[in-house]
Amino acid sequence: MTESRTVVVERDLPHPAAKVWRALTQPHLMAEWLMKNDFAPQVGHRFNLRGDWGGVLDCEVLTLEPERKMSYSWDFNHEDPAYSLKSVVTFTLEPTESGTHLRMEQAGFRPDQKQAYGGAHAGWKQFLENLDQLLAKD
Amino acid sequence: MTESRTVVVERDLPHPAAKVWRALTQPHLMAEWLMKNDFAPQVGHRFNLRGDWGGVLDCEVLTLEPERKMSYSWDFNHEDPAYSLKSVVTFTLEPTESGTHLRMEQAGFRPDQKQAYGGAHAGWKQFLENLDQLLAKD
Repeated sequence: MTESRTVVVERDLPHPAAKVWRALTQPHLMAEWLMKNDFAPQVGHRFNLRGDWGGVLDCEVLTLEPERKMSYSWDFNHEDPAYSLKSVVTFTLEPTESGTHLRMEQAGFRPDQKQAYGGAHAGWKQFLENLDQLLAKD
Repeated sequence: MTESRTVVVERDLPHPAAKVWRALTQPHLMAEWLMKNDFAPQVGHRFNLRGDWGGVLDCEVLTLEPERKMSYSWDFNHEDPAYSLKSVVTFTLEPTESGTHLRMEQAGFRPDQKQAYGGAHAGWKQFLENLDQLLAKD
């Protein structure tokens, strides 16, 4: 495989980077906008994201720069290779005049994984919408 | 394993059973309220439900009584048995004075799968909320 595709979803959040970072890295907050999880903010930490419908993703923290950048693997292991996904999610935070610009990039979709790719785009838009609503709460 | 737990979520929908049944069994409508899929309304048909975040469920139509009842398996295969799920989802439709009473039952959670069980309860509430909103559209 020499090629892969990347989903990018961006959002301007009217909150300081420290507050956005907290929501990206505290398990009980991640559970509110993303999925239930046993995340810990440590490079090398392996964790799972668990969907409400019984599905589970296998993840590992790859990079971590507080309040600036974080990446983790986001793998889905299925017996049918067509459904297997090995991807990397990277969040980048940039301060703006009104708050924080958040960029989410998920890289690693194979060219034949059109449905997973389209689904991820829709999924991340919803996740970041959830995040915005969560941050607005307090 | 001699014991299992069942999630039940019910909802009164202000629409006739024929319309609710359509949303439960037409793939493009199921995609709107549940997940992308290659469902077909035939006993024995195997299909997948695909989550927006890359996860996939393995399913098979088990029973089908038009406008009254349908069940399908809802399995998640993970290398870690703690996360594997073998379950059966059953929808039952009952006409009421104002429309249709829909009952969703998902059976097969092991007693140790507390998180999957709790997640399914939350997930189905959201799915049936989506269904209600979809049906209200036309």
